Amino acid sequence: MTDLMHKANFPQKDEVTIGLVQMSMGVDPKSNLEKAIKKIGDAASRGAQVICLPELFKSQYFCQEEDSENFKLAETIPGSTTDAISIAAKKGNTAVIAGIFEKRARGLYHNSAAVIDSSGKLVGVYRKMHIPDDPHYYEKFYFAPGDLGFKAFETEHGKLGTLICWDQWYPEAARLTSLLGAQILFYPTAIGWFPEEEESAKEMQSAWETIQRAHGIANGVFVAAVNRVGREGNINFWGSSFVSGPFGEMLAKASPDNEETLIVKCDLSSIDTTRHGWPFLRDRRIDAYKGITSRFLG
Amino acid sequence: MTDLMHKANFPQKDEVTIGLVQMSMGVDPKSNLEKAIKKIGDAASRGAQVICLPELFKSQYFCQEEDSENFKLAETIPGSTTDAISIAAKKGNTAVIAGIFEKRARGLYHNSAAVIDSSGKLVGVYRKMHIPDDPHYYEKFYFAPGDLGFKAFETEHGKLGTLICWDQWYPEAARLTSLLGAQILFYPTAIGWFPEEEESAKEMQSAWETIQRAHGIANGVFVAAVNRVGREGNINFWGSSFVSGPFGEMLAKASPDNEETLIVKCDLSSIDTTRHGWPFLRDRRIDAYKGITSRFLG
Repeated sequence: MTDLMHKANFPQKDEVTIGLVQMSMGVDPKSNLEKAIKKIGDAASRGAQVICLPELFKSQYFCQEEDSENFKLAETIPGSTTDAISIAAKKGNTAVIAGIFEKRARGLYHNSAAVIDSSGKLVGVYRKMHIPDDPHYYEKFYFAPGDLGFKAFETEHGKLGTLICWDQWYPEAARLTSLLGAQILFYPTAIGWFPEEEESAKEMQSAWETIQRAHGIANGVFVAAVNRVGREGNINFWGSSFVSGPFGEMLAKASPDNEETLIVKCDLSSIDTTRHGWPFLRDRRIDAYKGITSRFLG
Repeated sequence: MTDLMHKANFPQKDEVTIGLVQMSMGVDPKSNLEKAIKKIGDAASRGAQVICLPELFKSQYFCQEEDSENFKLAETIPGSTTDAISIAAKKGNTAVIAGIFEKRARGLYHNSAAVIDSSGKLVGVYRKMHIPDDPHYYEKFYFAPGDLGFKAFETEHGKLGTLICWDQWYPEAARLTSLLGAQILFYPTAIGWFPEEEESAKEMQSAWETIQRAHGIANGVFVAAVNRVGREGNINFWGSSFVSGPFGEMLAKASPDNEETLIVKCDLSSIDTTRHGWPFLRDRRIDAYKGITSRFLG
């Protein structure tokens, strides 16, 4: 009931312009925040109504090693970073999704996305549900797995789904966020390749793009992947941020190696037309999916 | 226990050669069966150990209209068609997956796939779980939804997952079949475009390919999609049968308009190496996926 009353505050719009800030990060968090705020202003002036920053945008990707010193980079939500972004959001009259290294309690941290609306209000937080751990992506050392579940946030510019990086590889995450009503799935991201992977880098990028476009197709929603760019330590972050439409069609794509802000108009009514033509949600066998909550069935 | 004993009969092999029979269908079922049997023999002689025929291979795609007369095309499993295929399978020393219009009882029909091993034994049946209904794909008129759940069949050439056509669009189907231990997902298929869709045909094929390759990526398994080809009534079946590897890489692809049998060697040990590099199964949030069994959560 509360939810229905809340919805009534936001009549459904058919068009939203989104801004994807693909940026590089320096060693100084303060400078990264200043740069991000400038880019929010630029994107807003170009018409963006919802702006997404990359994962953990305020610092370099510290998970390349396991070092307790890095916990100093974390901060609360709300906190000084979300406060600064709130001001930028209000000033630009734009919603912002920002990847934050969240300090929840002493010794308890999350990889989170804060959602701030165009009035500057903190609408909510998503905590990354799937935490990777691979050589030089030692995230399990830093982040507790999210415990808020999957999320879609009602804003005046549509229902925004938030997922983070490693979540990209999980159809369940995209499905659940879409079932919550999300019309656009935002994926703040930090993904790249190591020098020794140069040969397979293209294949990795292709798989990364393919599976996210597929989430769009399966659910009939827009997908916005926002990656960082540039070399940090041993990783070449591959940029290539993109927006795909509800049948997986590529609407815009950034370069693999430059800072760039994509401004993309999304016609949300195309979600209806796509789902009419490809009514996947109608035919789901919800009576037969229980095994999805098992680790393995073989 | 029974399952474990069964497994013991089939030591895990690291290599299997699969054959995808992309064929066109005439109006005479008997001729289609004869053609399929000849193609099974050809594929076996080229080294195929598991051969997959298209969906409902014995007839033209009758679901283009709703006509009770078409129920006459259905047959039991086992029945004369699976008997004929069993003989061909044994003769060629090859397993066969065959799309059958199954008559289960008077007035009760399924769109099924029969799995026959290289000894000619009927290993089992999968009944299409997701039934489409779109203009000229009136499948809900003909087929009851499958009630056997998702399936992976143990054979001497690995654990074979069977899904059918519309199932292609459902990540849940691919996930559950993979969790059952399937190493290759076979999708016998009948998909095409109408003359009036010519402009969007390319985009449709692209989405069809993208989402299936994505199932391979998400699960670290091989995908084999086997489509029919040629014009029947109002539909141009687009062929383009393909095999992709466990990171979604395209291994082989047939033409959009010719009969063709793809023979593809699959290195099943690459499922290990891919899953080691991209350990998605390790990090699934099985505690948080319960909502998948809901129709909608918004």
